[in-house]
Amino acid sequence: MSNLKTRIAREIGTPAMVVDLEVVERNIARVQALCDEKGIANRPHIKTHKSVFFAKGQMAGGAAGITCQKLSEAEIMAEAGFDDIFISYNLLGEEKMARLARLTEKARMSVAADNPTVIADLAKAAAMAGREISVLIECDTGRKRAGVETPAEAVTLAKMVEMSPGLSFAGLMMYPPEDGIAATNRFLAEALAGLREHGLEARVISSGGTPNLVSNLGQVDGQTEHRAGTSIFNDRMMIAAGFATEADCALHIYTTVVSRGGAERGILDAGSKVFTSDTGWGLKGYGHILEHPQAAIGQFAEEHGFLDLARCNDRPQIGDVVRVIPNHVCPVVNVVGQMVLVRGEELIGTMKVDARGALI
Amino acid sequence: MSNLKTRIAREIGTPAMVVDLEVVERNIARVQALCDEKGIANRPHIKTHKSVFFAKGQMAGGAAGITCQKLSEAEIMAEAGFDDIFISYNLLGEEKMARLARLTEKARMSVAADNPTVIADLAKAAAMAGREISVLIECDTGRKRAGVETPAEAVTLAKMVEMSPGLSFAGLMMYPPEDGIAATNRFLAEALAGLREHGLEARVISSGGTPNLVSNLGQVDGQTEHRAGTSIFNDRMMIAAGFATEADCALHIYTTVVSRGGAERGILDAGSKVFTSDTGWGLKGYGHILEHPQAAIGQFAEEHGFLDLARCNDRPQIGDVVRVIPNHVCPVVNVVGQMVLVRGEELIGTMKVDARGALI
Repeated sequence: MSNLKTRIAREIGTPAMVVDLEVVERNIARVQALCDEKGIANRPHIKTHKSVFFAKGQMAGGAAGITCQKLSEAEIMAEAGFDDIFISYNLLGEEKMARLARLTEKARMSVAADNPTVIADLAKAAAMAGREISVLIECDTGRKRAGVETPAEAVTLAKMVEMSPGLSFAGLMMYPPEDGIAATNRFLAEALAGLREHGLEARVISSGGTPNLVSNLGQVDGQTEHRAGTSIFNDRMMIAAGFATEADCALHIYTTVVSRGGAERGILDAGSKVFTSDTGWGLKGYGHILEHPQAAIGQFAEEHGFLDLARCNDRPQIGDVVRVIPNHVCPVVNVVGQMVLVRGEELIGTMKVDARGALI
Repeated sequence: MSNLKTRIAREIGTPAMVVDLEVVERNIARVQALCDEKGIANRPHIKTHKSVFFAKGQMAGGAAGITCQKLSEAEIMAEAGFDDIFISYNLLGEEKMARLARLTEKARMSVAADNPTVIADLAKAAAMAGREISVLIECDTGRKRAGVETPAEAVTLAKMVEMSPGLSFAGLMMYPPEDGIAATNRFLAEALAGLREHGLEARVISSGGTPNLVSNLGQVDGQTEHRAGTSIFNDRMMIAAGFATEADCALHIYTTVVSRGGAERGILDAGSKVFTSDTGWGLKGYGHILEHPQAAIGQFAEEHGFLDLARCNDRPQIGDVVRVIPNHVCPVVNVVGQMVLVRGEELIGTMKVDARGALI
């Protein structure tokens, strides 16, 4: 086994979530360059790494600010000194509004909204806050998750924001499907025309998503900023999406083969409680094993990864440590909670994931 | 909204993982009664709750000891005073052996093994340890995960254990498929005959699994103990498996509807980072919503639960808090990490999950 594997197994133990800083730095620089080339501000989504350390690296690399998905993530980032935070999520309710109001004392806050209930609550937060809260109207341009479905609704909500003391309409936010740019631009044209009719201007047109960085960055009309998360580490889904290669994957699970029940079977000491059961982009199985690319992780129990070695000539032995690229890196970081930092073959140390499980 | 929902939303915020102690106590008593009735020792698997508090409740209810899946779980339990711990998992490598040796100072440890590499390592741990380590040979009687595939291998490994100073052969462990009892008994008959030939006795025949508590407890020949985890909380999978009813589900995710993009759509403030993407038992979708049983959680983003309200007459409004039974409760406890304890409609307080993310 490599010296690094041996050290990680001996000094830290497996399963271990190992992040290569060399690859991270390359990934940060790549995204920044893609944005710079198009003159689009880079506002990385911290939901992937959930770590002050990496967010600082992204800012040092040229990011204009950060994106969070949850208020608790934003609180951790504000506490660490980040002063321009966008929460791309509908926040509502007394408990969250009190916290959002307190957050404005530490950072310039902008938040997403897609309905009047949320905007009415944000106005209450603004009344408690010492500082204006910027609001972006979230637009659903095809993904069918959050977001208003029509440009007219976007305009109505923008007007509602603008009429609320303490709130300021900042612009429009969307998360277009990779093949949904034409629809997004039709939506935007109509919404922007409607806004202009009411004397409103969208200073920010915020798009997002890692695959969109290569499939359509700059094609969203008037796009001013981009929010991407996964691009800092990449994963099996981003390889399937055509965004990344194996060499671009900065995070691996180091896991030990602990059983070889049959000639064609094996068990890893990591299962769904490490890798999670996320899948997508037509992937089969869970995770790609660098040392045994023909081996499949066909199934999980909570702490077992079931290896199918049928198509594998060079089969791992009990005690072998293998490196696995997870299907989806974001929930893995969130659940594992401790990163082992390396640089190439050098072991740097361990680091807690600051916003692990920050879900409220 | 109910008073409890309002208090949880206001004082804690959503999403929240809420555990009803009344239901937990009923579930603990039910499993103990099932075991008592068959004269089988109850050795609950703590991987579901990962909490000293609930493990103590299980011991107070009559459990004979506890089961852990990971060494780090066992360390937390031993530290809390549990002195009879079975780790139903292949442990190997220097780092884990040093820890296992230290653990023997605090608790009587038994561990599973299904191969000579693991047994050789356990013997090294025993050499460092102050106290004997009991070993159960894990047998695969149909589930095709860890475990020896043949009775002859079980006998060979039992002999190897018995010949290792500091190790003591305790018996056989299995996790039979719900419909695999005949095969399990054939395996056991042959293995026990082989053991007898060599003067070895299996003091422990350890079976496991929550669904097996109703489908075959006492049907595994000579079964002395049972390991069940999920039965303490239950979940949508255990309802599908026929083990539990809705009323037996002790854990709910309280989550807020934060968006209603269309008449038939909605978004919950909890997605795969709370519920995980686990599925099984032929379930469709993720989670069952108590207030809107016809609503489906058809898809997740990391922090969004996508509601399909097409078949739902009484549709939730933005701001509504709903209670969801997760598909699979074990990884939810592991990722969320904080429990809100209630008793019926009374809010008791919050509690950290002690062994959250204890994976090494």
